[in-house]
Amino acid sequence: MSEPPRRSRAIHVDEDAEQAAHPEWDGTGRLRLHFTPADREVRVPPAVSVFDAASWNGIAVDSTCGGHGTCKKCKVRILDGSIPVSPMDQRAFGPDQLAEGWRLACLAAVHSDLSIEIPPLTTRPKAATVGVGRQVILRPAIQKRYVELSEPTLSDQVPDVDRLLAAIDDLEPVVSLHALRRIPTVVRAADWKVTAVIVDDQLIDVEPGDTSATHHALAFDLGTTTVVATLLDTTTGTPVAVASMLNKQQPFGGDVITRISATMMDPDVLPRLTELAKDTLAELTDNVCTEAGIDPGQVYEIALAGNATMVSLLLGIDPEPIGVAPFILSSRTTPTLAAADLGVAIHPAAPAYVLPSLGAYVGGDIVAGTLASGMDRDKRLRLFIDVGTNCEIVLGDGERLLSTAAPAGPAFEGGQIRCGMRAADGAIEVVALTPEDVELQVIGDVEPRGLCGSGLVDAVSELVRIGLLDRSGRLISEEAARELVPKLAGRLVQIGEERVFVLHWAGAEGDVAESTYISQRDVRELQFAKAAISTGWTLLLEEMGVEAQDVQQVLLAGSFGSYLSPASAIRIGLVPRLPVLRIVSAGNVAGEGAKMTLLSKAERAGAEALLKEVSYVELSDRPDFNDRFVDLLAFP
Amino acid sequence: MSEPPRRSRAIHVDEDAEQAAHPEWDGTGRLRLHFTPADREVRVPPAVSVFDAASWNGIAVDSTCGGHGTCKKCKVRILDGSIPVSPMDQRAFGPDQLAEGWRLACLAAVHSDLSIEIPPLTTRPKAATVGVGRQVILRPAIQKRYVELSEPTLSDQVPDVDRLLAAIDDLEPVVSLHALRRIPTVVRAADWKVTAVIVDDQLIDVEPGDTSATHHALAFDLGTTTVVATLLDTTTGTPVAVASMLNKQQPFGGDVITRISATMMDPDVLPRLTELAKDTLAELTDNVCTEAGIDPGQVYEIALAGNATMVSLLLGIDPEPIGVAPFILSSRTTPTLAAADLGVAIHPAAPAYVLPSLGAYVGGDIVAGTLASGMDRDKRLRLFIDVGTNCEIVLGDGERLLSTAAPAGPAFEGGQIRCGMRAADGAIEVVALTPEDVELQVIGDVEPRGLCGSGLVDAVSELVRIGLLDRSGRLISEEAARELVPKLAGRLVQIGEERVFVLHWAGAEGDVAESTYISQRDVRELQFAKAAISTGWTLLLEEMGVEAQDVQQVLLAGSFGSYLSPASAIRIGLVPRLPVLRIVSAGNVAGEGAKMTLLSKAERAGAEALLKEVSYVELSDRPDFNDRFVDLLAFP
Repeated sequence: MSEPPRRSRAIHVDEDAEQAAHPEWDGTGRLRLHFTPADREVRVPPAVSVFDAASWNGIAVDSTCGGHGTCKKCKVRILDGSIPVSPMDQRAFGPDQLAEGWRLACLAAVHSDLSIEIPPLTTRPKAATVGVGRQVILRPAIQKRYVELSEPTLSDQVPDVDRLLAAIDDLEPVVSLHALRRIPTVVRAADWKVTAVIVDDQLIDVEPGDTSATHHALAFDLGTTTVVATLLDTTTGTPVAVASMLNKQQPFGGDVITRISATMMDPDVLPRLTELAKDTLAELTDNVCTEAGIDPGQVYEIALAGNATMVSLLLGIDPEPIGVAPFILSSRTTPTLAAADLGVAIHPAAPAYVLPSLGAYVGGDIVAGTLASGMDRDKRLRLFIDVGTNCEIVLGDGERLLSTAAPAGPAFEGGQIRCGMRAADGAIEVVALTPEDVELQVIGDVEPRGLCGSGLVDAVSELVRIGLLDRSGRLISEEAARELVPKLAGRLVQIGEERVFVLHWAGAEGDVAESTYISQRDVRELQFAKAAISTGWTLLLEEMGVEAQDVQQVLLAGSFGSYLSPASAIRIGLVPRLPVLRIVSAGNVAGEGAKMTLLSKAERAGAEALLKEVSYVELSDRPDFNDRFVDLLAFP
Repeated sequence: MSEPPRRSRAIHVDEDAEQAAHPEWDGTGRLRLHFTPADREVRVPPAVSVFDAASWNGIAVDSTCGGHGTCKKCKVRILDGSIPVSPMDQRAFGPDQLAEGWRLACLAAVHSDLSIEIPPLTTRPKAATVGVGRQVILRPAIQKRYVELSEPTLSDQVPDVDRLLAAIDDLEPVVSLHALRRIPTVVRAADWKVTAVIVDDQLIDVEPGDTSATHHALAFDLGTTTVVATLLDTTTGTPVAVASMLNKQQPFGGDVITRISATMMDPDVLPRLTELAKDTLAELTDNVCTEAGIDPGQVYEIALAGNATMVSLLLGIDPEPIGVAPFILSSRTTPTLAAADLGVAIHPAAPAYVLPSLGAYVGGDIVAGTLASGMDRDKRLRLFIDVGTNCEIVLGDGERLLSTAAPAGPAFEGGQIRCGMRAADGAIEVVALTPEDVELQVIGDVEPRGLCGSGLVDAVSELVRIGLLDRSGRLISEEAARELVPKLAGRLVQIGEERVFVLHWAGAEGDVAESTYISQRDVRELQFAKAAISTGWTLLLEEMGVEAQDVQQVLLAGSFGSYLSPASAIRIGLVPRLPVLRIVSAGNVAGEGAKMTLLSKAERAGAEALLKEVSYVELSDRPDFNDRFVDLLAFP
């Protein structure tokens, strides 16, 4: 492939302006938001908008403009804490309202803990804001039509189905067997006044009377670690309930390679993993329907985004070819299935849409993320990084889309790290060092039990910043430490043959084995992981012929990536060295992309179009990969 | 509707010429054919061709021309008995071969018992002859493609499915979930040499190696009484095995109305009838696969023709609206189902095509019959009558197709007839009266146990001919009988309050109650039945503006109709008064039509097109129906 000419770009990034407005935001830490009347508390990185924080957590906020402050529907009230008044707020609210704390949620970037009131939805919108500020015109596959049919007579013997279809003749659906069975009984019992339920090109049911107001669908983000279900009202585009839980396949390995290996060792494992995935989806379905008080029989469609291995295991497709060279996906697309095929007991004829995969390591989760972050439409040069054991990277400039996968290893998920753990209660998620002390934020505000990925990145970043780690990734000598930061030097100790830095002493100082620490080897693991990722985006930037500093936005995605401190990510070289506000948390974009395919047939078509639009760059095939990788092991 | 102008037709019917050539064929009786090497004996009405007799009974004969004697492939040898040499035979065979008994099966009308040798198939034909002389170009929905794929590498990571589809890129099938699961495993186990199995627009499987020679499909005729399964080789168009059995729903009633009533009395009956229908299909599937030695997993598609009630019960659709006025069908078409939905355990992803219905009483069996008899293509004025409890009638002239249903009642099936029984061993199926005696043909050549429909029609016809029944349908007085036919008069006796004519004395003469007889009330039942049918075709002829004598062919169809004696059918007025050779037995056209939809996608499209081409004429809606009916009760 011939190298495209290198381009120089005029950079104009709003984030830079915002950075100037919020000098206090240094790209680290975590904030606490409490939503009323939902009575839900969430923790988010600074600079996320109130709208996104609510929406990602299943709390519906009116919005039609795509988060640009123009529709002025996303009105929320800050009850505790403060949000500066923006020029758009001044147009949307009078002085009294502003004084009462009313703000537009999409423009309200959070920089302190807040308590926020979200008013109930007032309108039946034509569009919804989803993902990273994507405005989605509501054109869901689910359609309902209330009809009043004329009763048949001897001189009008038109069959029931033809009679019904004639009344909705702008649609030409195929009639499912389930609907065929229901129609004769339901139309007569309901005195020929029924609501037809159409999903995409199928008539799946008729319901007695007028039920045309209720449309529900279920979006799944089937992650290797965490599975998230969002129950959506597709007429408003808003989430009705969200639930998440660990993937029940966990006992068979924390990452895709371990699970693939398990299937290769024992032929009974694949069917078992399929059952466990279905069980996970089934339990989440129960949870969201119960929480929302919705009859599962009135949920008419599901969409599911997952990486290629998770999709294969769910569908009972042997994943071995994904796991061993040359790393081959079985199929990029999945035919439209029944929800029942995925173990999901909603409407018995509900179809299931599985987002397509681009390759063995660029799965439906990344297609969903690309869609939800608008990588395929935005004219800016943007870099999308889903950080995890298998890190997926997409680079787009509005004309070309390049993707690759980087094998980062399990460090970010807490794997292979001495005190590593998942982001659960007791995990250190934020680390800040001063010359005097170590400051920690712990999930659940309990005694620290270990270090999750974002805490690991913070810890290494801070050790580099303060000088206890040199650029090559070596902990400096005790003497040098005593000279540099005498109050921290005592935390540099030896465990067995390895040197460690203690973040939190368990009980009496000196009980190192029970303490939470970061070891020299942990640092190496992280270096390997971040080198793999930075090699990935470095090569993609080269492939596109652009420079790192031209990147106008870096989206950190995934259940881990979204919680990384941008400043730390920059300092260890995980992302390009850019102004910190260009590094944006994208949230659970896989789930958001799945939601979009339920809300809009156009977006679903967009997901399928990505199969042609995105070029996959295989890294393991490149002769310069190893050189780049070694160069990028050091810290910047 | 305005009445179309009456047309006068120039009649040119080949059957009339044949009638002249076979003055001995009077349209009555039954003949015995023995086929070698299949060692199968069948009984057929005279004048059926050897080709049809073999083909309807699942014995394959080469043929591509549609039974016109032009392809000269249907060579058979008469081992015992004789068939006259036709001009076409003289072109096809040398004098020695003719002397050895070689004939073209399609031109060999049988007029005596025969023993016939059918040579094995020699060619892989492009067309097959099916139904009533229909030449079907083989374009089955089942296609197989053997491909040798290149193995993937790091520089060629095309997914398995895309790799396979690229190798068969003239087809663009949807890949079934079953195939998705199989592909990665099978292509690797088979060293990338596999056969893709495509049915219609679906890739349903890949098989290791080259299996492209085996293509099997299963045609079902789901009758109210009898269910017939034909296992077909779709590459040759020939039947591999045929099996039939009674519909296991029989205990719930002999006719559709009784079964519909049963579902109305008890909500548990519909699911039970669905199970029984599935069980019937499942057992027949076992039977034909076992007989043919074919792995059910290598049978890839089914087609099913049945009346609307049978299809509803099979699919679990409430049939009540069919059974009560205004007699409404649920749906004319059925979506493509899985064979598994019908309880048929063949290939796990095999689809099932259910022939569409025109109305509540003109079902998929009649659509199949119309297709198999070429009613939609033939330029002649033809009348198709499927005789049974519910009699369906189609009239076509190559331009218009009219259909109706006549409620004939159960007389033809032996119901409501004192000594009535189904056409099984012990049933009198042919009756001939002479002034001296009664001559009977009994199925199975055993002691008579009762009278089946064709025997009933023969008996009434003969009683009318000899004068023991007057034209109004009354048995004449004993005195009149003694004068007219003294040797038969003793058979006119009284049982209770009813007069009967004894066909066969059980034991000593005089033991009437145990004998087989026909009663005055039986005659009335038959009169009602035939009046309903003749009212049907009379009104259809009027609707089309043609006279009865213009009809160039009457096709008697259905498991009962095909076995009626044409002469008797004429004499009682069941069919128009025409030269007897214009009355043709059409065989099991429902099953033949189902076969055609498996052999040709064009024929399947033809079946669907009939939904638009056939106009249904509702009889119960017509003010003149009752007058006509009463007029037609008498014998002609």
